[in-house]
Amino acid sequence: MLPQKIIIDTDPGQDDAVALLLALASPELSVEGVVTVAGNVPLDRTTYNARQVLELAGRTDVPLHAGAARPMRRDLVTAEHVHGPTGLDGPSLPVPTMPVRDKHGVDFLIESFRAATPGELSLVTLGPLTNIAMALVKAPDIAARIGRIVMIAGTHLEGGNITPAAAFNEYVDPEAADLVLRSGLPITMVPMDVTHRCLSTKARLDALRALGNRAAVAAAEMLSFSEVFDMQKYGWEAAPLHDPCAIAFLLRPDIFTGRKVHVGIELKGELTYGMSVVDWWRVTDRVPNVDFLHDIDADAFYALLTQRLARLP
Amino acid sequence: MLPQKIIIDTDPGQDDAVALLLALASPELSVEGVVTVAGNVPLDRTTYNARQVLELAGRTDVPLHAGAARPMRRDLVTAEHVHGPTGLDGPSLPVPTMPVRDKHGVDFLIESFRAATPGELSLVTLGPLTNIAMALVKAPDIAARIGRIVMIAGTHLEGGNITPAAAFNEYVDPEAADLVLRSGLPITMVPMDVTHRCLSTKARLDALRALGNRAAVAAAEMLSFSEVFDMQKYGWEAAPLHDPCAIAFLLRPDIFTGRKVHVGIELKGELTYGMSVVDWWRVTDRVPNVDFLHDIDADAFYALLTQRLARLP
Amino acid sequence: MLPQKIIIDTDPGQDDAVALLLALASPELSVEGVVTVAGNVPLDRTTYNARQVLELAGRTDVPLHAGAARPMRRDLVTAEHVHGPTGLDGPSLPVPTMPVRDKHGVDFLIESFRAATPGELSLVTLGPLTNIAMALVKAPDIAARIGRIVMIAGTHLEGGNITPAAAFNEYVDPEAADLVLRSGLPITMVPMDVTHRCLSTKARLDALRALGNRAAVAAAEMLSFSEVFDMQKYGWEAAPLHDPCAIAFLLRPDIFTGRKVHVGIELKGELTYGMSVVDWWRVTDRVPNVDFLHDIDADAFYALLTQRLARLP
Amino acid sequence: MLPQKIIIDTDPGQDDAVALLLALASPELSVEGVVTVAGNVPLDRTTYNARQVLELAGRTDVPLHAGAARPMRRDLVTAEHVHGPTGLDGPSLPVPTMPVRDKHGVDFLIESFRAATPGELSLVTLGPLTNIAMALVKAPDIAARIGRIVMIAGTHLEGGNITPAAAFNEYVDPEAADLVLRSGLPITMVPMDVTHRCLSTKARLDALRALGNRAAVAAAEMLSFSEVFDMQKYGWEAAPLHDPCAIAFLLRPDIFTGRKVHVGIELKGELTYGMSVVDWWRVTDRVPNVDFLHDIDADAFYALLTQRLARLP
Repeated sequence: MLPQKIIIDTDPGQDDAVALLLALASPELSVEGVVTVAGNVPLDRTTYNARQVLELAGRTDVPLHAGAARPMRRDLVTAEHVHGPTGLDGPSLPVPTMPVRDKHGVDFLIESFRAATPGELSLVTLGPLTNIAMALVKAPDIAARIGRIVMIAGTHLEGGNITPAAAFNEYVDPEAADLVLRSGLPITMVPMDVTHRCLSTKARLDALRALGNRAAVAAAEMLSFSEVFDMQKYGWEAAPLHDPCAIAFLLRPDIFTGRKVHVGIELKGELTYGMSVVDWWRVTDRVPNVDFLHDIDADAFYALLTQRLARLP
Repeated sequence: MLPQKIIIDTDPGQDDAVALLLALASPELSVEGVVTVAGNVPLDRTTYNARQVLELAGRTDVPLHAGAARPMRRDLVTAEHVHGPTGLDGPSLPVPTMPVRDKHGVDFLIESFRAATPGELSLVTLGPLTNIAMALVKAPDIAARIGRIVMIAGTHLEGGNITPAAAFNEYVDPEAADLVLRSGLPITMVPMDVTHRCLSTKARLDALRALGNRAAVAAAEMLSFSEVFDMQKYGWEAAPLHDPCAIAFLLRPDIFTGRKVHVGIELKGELTYGMSVVDWWRVTDRVPNVDFLHDIDADAFYALLTQRLARLP
Repeated sequence: MLPQKIIIDTDPGQDDAVALLLALASPELSVEGVVTVAGNVPLDRTTYNARQVLELAGRTDVPLHAGAARPMRRDLVTAEHVHGPTGLDGPSLPVPTMPVRDKHGVDFLIESFRAATPGELSLVTLGPLTNIAMALVKAPDIAARIGRIVMIAGTHLEGGNITPAAAFNEYVDPEAADLVLRSGLPITMVPMDVTHRCLSTKARLDALRALGNRAAVAAAEMLSFSEVFDMQKYGWEAAPLHDPCAIAFLLRPDIFTGRKVHVGIELKGELTYGMSVVDWWRVTDRVPNVDFLHDIDADAFYALLTQRLARLP
Repeated sequence: MLPQKIIIDTDPGQDDAVALLLALASPELSVEGVVTVAGNVPLDRTTYNARQVLELAGRTDVPLHAGAARPMRRDLVTAEHVHGPTGLDGPSLPVPTMPVRDKHGVDFLIESFRAATPGELSLVTLGPLTNIAMALVKAPDIAARIGRIVMIAGTHLEGGNITPAAAFNEYVDPEAADLVLRSGLPITMVPMDVTHRCLSTKARLDALRALGNRAAVAAAEMLSFSEVFDMQKYGWEAAPLHDPCAIAFLLRPDIFTGRKVHVGIELKGELTYGMSVVDWWRVTDRVPNVDFLHDIDADAFYALLTQRLARLP
């Protein structure tokens, strides 16, 4: 079977970095390009970090394009309080040397989907949905060509993380999220309900670190850094691991459960701006638009992650 | 120790009825009055049902006042799909004969709090917060005299029940809920997070029914009726029991856990109108205004309920 | 012909005071009671001021009831910057001695409408709509008995006064205004579009003052005080006169023009909270609910006002 | 003096067409390009129409780029009920033959502003603000390079046209308008308050038609068509002329009056979504961000229009 072609749209971020490593290490996936977006940290940092990660994986052949430096309407909100000032605090990585391509990430998305056979190329978004939403406004014709969007987004029964109601990625660019959710595209949403079941326990991080290769060790160092915030906040002994779950879904959909439901983004709320509203119990007549995941076999996930990162340099 | 004086504001509803029975059966509480409100069913039905319940408990001495027939701003939403057309479907209860007092429930609240020593009299609300909110608008001076409001309201990590985001009582009268939450009053909120841990299993209902007295048997019949809706909706083997938890908190606060947090009501959201937004993880700087419960010892609760209902006729 | 029975609900305010004087001086109207509300100044001041005005008119026989001290949901906003610290700055009026009745203004409204033949008694509101909205929540049955509400409210092509979009009376209690406008009651709205055509020029105030009787002189002194704010704000040579227009409509509907249109109150807007949205050009399919006035023969109005105030002590 | 360099962003529309003709006929202006947007009619029609207008003016040398086919968030709303099915109903114009350039209009804006000296190139928008808002998201650096945006947008004391509160251009893409207004760019807004004073009377249209050249005759035919809608709606004897006022402002700012004020776009309102909220009387502390015009010497305007259109083929 041919590998699944994907573009990864991301705002690294330690967990974005580990997701990139997982994708790049997996022969089932062909990463056709990486696009960056402002989110966890500003765009110049997420782009810098993406270069570091691609070099860490030894994959400077993957075309890297910088996308949107700001959300579609609101001012940028970032999360250095979680990820550290660089967004990739933890390991000590070399100054990157690989180039960023000239083309804007939004145009790379448009041209890639136009060039591909309809359905052949899918998108994985690990950050705010600005780039794909901008692409859909600029080039509505690509909607019919996108295979699927697998997105780290949403929260149902876990509340929000950046506000009491909203999860970070939608909160940063609620209008973009709204547009994508109303676009009619096939969407799989990997929400906090899943990622909060996927804890980076000491044993799991130790197993990664024990692999000894530079990518796995760096991944363990990244997660050891970023998990401090959540462990303190929630009083848990380990932190959730978010973004690699989206890649894992492409590799092992069988270890997830979910349901097709309606998800909308609240754009008018004073306390709930940017909240993903999930009609899990179908108490409305809104038409389901999202495959909304809600559980994961976390052991299988970490086994997969560990096995794959071992393949990297 | 003298019994705690309370007024119960309610829209029976089967679970309201069981809450009334629990209160009336408990010597630690002195029920100074019952006020009805439109909610689960229209006001004429909730008032009729309250009369049936007081007669079932043999407590026609308790003054009963009909309150607000509609919410403060929006049109009335009811829940016959859960409670049946009468609101009290299940047992066969006699046509009530006890009178309803002439005074409007809002005025009964105002006069009762004015007549009581400050702090001496508390309020338990089992339905929409219309009556107490109307009382606070009409007589702002009573705010300083209310001991505490213990309310069945809110949802944090359980989502909504009437919409994907909102719980029924706040959804019916969001403006009233907002006003009460911003009033500065001491508030204990018993949310769906608690009541969804309090399942009316067959064994628990059997234990009630086995008491054999008419009140306990009727309570078991009520809950057997109303639980069908939630069992079908959630696919659970038993349904949550809501309103008696508020009474149980007054009797046995030790079987609950919770945290003082900020709770606000979303009034502007399109998808989230009437949602209680709980800053459980304190990610905002909003000042805590509610003792928000989040767990209960369900076995202890049902033991208490069974023991007390045994005391009734 | 028998005089038209009305209750006046008011928050004096200099222009409210002149409206009261106009009504009390007019044999076509029978003022069955005056109810006060918090608005231009807090309730204790509007009630004090209403007593002064009734005494000024020599009409201590009119029952005066204090109504709501606060809006239905939001916190009270007042306008001392316009009306002065007392709300009735300008003339020097004696400390009032007439009593305020015990009954709450909301209950006076309810009982008056229940006691009257349906349609026989109308309401004039000169301030926020809190009292009548509270009455409609507490006693929905009165809706079928109210003849008409003539209200000083709304603005179409004059913008707002308290915010760029909202007029004062609706801004103070938007939820009350919304409820009344959706109630199905016959409503005549006298908006800023009318009152801004009704300027208290020097000549017009001089004519009042020249009458020489204490009520007319006091009225001229009131309006000379309150007009300073608007004259400075708008750079006009005279200020609009608002509240007496509502009384004038009852006396001389022929000097007004208007159209039946839909008016709604914006409750969700960030910049437009409390705005009256008038579908003057019928670009929506919303059903007309208001007789919305838009012009007045200002000369005829001032002639009427002057002629009538001459009749007072 | 060198001519002022401008790009015109437009959704023709008859009045857009006349604005284009006025600009192309004026030696004080150098039209560096035309960009189309979806608005009055869908993008394929506005682009087709722009070609017809450029050919009518004999200016096929002006680069024409198609921009956004849809708004940034909401679904497209169009106005064929005003402009006819083609958007340019009225004259019979030949099928256009001039090409549309390949580059997307948003990218043409970005590259043009990047290529120009800061401040040298200005933008005139006659339609929804989608293109420039998209450009500012995609290339925030251009904000510092744009000389000024003169936009047909806003309404203060004229109410809305597409809804009771909102004017068409902002209503079609409220999020774009909001972003541009918050961008810090120098903005001149030409609102309905101005354009409603600029009536296409029969005498004025006759004067145009009498010029006899094909462009002027076509302009007169266009306006004769499009004015029917407004004349019927408002019951006026002539219709307002909107878009050419923006060009006239560049040519003859002295015939306009206005004030620097704050203008915001309401994004949360139920009845007011897309409304421009103008703090004309400075009743808030919002910092002025717009030169908001409010009057025009209409005779001077039509004299200018007639004089200039005479210069065209």
